Amino acid sequence: MPHIAPLARLVEQFRRLPGIGPKSATRLAYHVLAMDREQSRDLAEAIIEAKEKIGYCSICFNLTDCDPCQICRSDTRDSGLICVVEEPQDVAAMERTREFRGLYHVLHGSLSPLDGVGPDELRLKELLARMNDSQVREVIMATNPDVEGEATAMYTARLLKPLGVKVTRIAHGLPVGGDLEYADEVTLSKALENRREM
Amino acid sequence: MPHIAPLARLVEQFRRLPGIGPKSATRLAYHVLAMDREQSRDLAEAIIEAKEKIGYCSICFNLTDCDPCQICRSDTRDSGLICVVEEPQDVAAMERTREFRGLYHVLHGSLSPLDGVGPDELRLKELLARMNDSQVREVIMATNPDVEGEATAMYTARLLKPLGVKVTRIAHGLPVGGDLEYADEVTLSKALENRREM
Repeated sequence: MPHIAPLARLVEQFRRLPGIGPKSATRLAYHVLAMDREQSRDLAEAIIEAKEKIGYCSICFNLTDCDPCQICRSDTRDSGLICVVEEPQDVAAMERTREFRGLYHVLHGSLSPLDGVGPDELRLKELLARMNDSQVREVIMATNPDVEGEATAMYTARLLKPLGVKVTRIAHGLPVGGDLEYADEVTLSKALENRREM
Repeated sequence: MPHIAPLARLVEQFRRLPGIGPKSATRLAYHVLAMDREQSRDLAEAIIEAKEKIGYCSICFNLTDCDPCQICRSDTRDSGLICVVEEPQDVAAMERTREFRGLYHVLHGSLSPLDGVGPDELRLKELLARMNDSQVREVIMATNPDVEGEATAMYTARLLKPLGVKVTRIAHGLPVGGDLEYADEVTLSKALENRREM
């Protein structure tokens, strides 16, 4: 196909999105060209609108279109309990359980010295500042169960404990519906270690 | 996550794209929110620009940002040879071979009575009109090798032959690098039927 500059630019833009390779990007671009003019405008406007209207909550740093966010300003939630997660997506995952009724704190990453992410790159200072509020009874570390997430949980716990707040970590174990036979050794030994009396 | 309307709208817009399910759409939306403002604007503008600047060539109905398109206006291409394809993407596929130096005609679909696509929905009248040009020696039917594509090729050939133009069909056979053992029966019998002397 002879070079059509606007098409090439659109493919290039789609390729920058996560999980979109060159073939998918081309397919998406052709799809956009086959759309109604109105539909393609809706897509473009949704991108701009989301970017313009959504920011971070000044308390918990979750994504929000109002500040403080709906969770932080809610009076039906337990403000003595803060769940610390890595990313806004993790808040969405926690909320889907409908079990947790406390507040959140989004760190925006995890400690990863090799990638140049140290404590100053995370929202740790802001988490510590929230402890001054003194109502906080417990901080639940719900960072990912990988090396960086564990390190972040350990580091944060060490910062928080001297302030006299209880720090807990979400449990490791077998996923519900999982299969013992296919569980990896580390998960299985964690599950054994953390066994409960029935 | 409490309902953030602009985020929900963006997820909904991404979900309408082909091959993007609810999980991918959510992932893309969070990615857009994590982008620089400038990057997200580039993406939105590329969508609008592509849609506004790209239209169909008035001769071959391929996508183009100038009319007639670069292929139709080229004087190094053989205007006696027209390759008929279903979609603009197929032109791109043919061009990648770097073998074909004739012109194209994009039908924008294939005959599919069950989906309500009859001859009037395709760019067939426009193809017939090009035959008046009289320089055309051969029309190569390069519609897809499926039921609809075959029907479209047969139908088009019947329209064109009375005009005294040679109509050919691209070959069926084993794909290069394919494996005889895994070829389906129809492809294999076509490959046998169309065998050539070596």
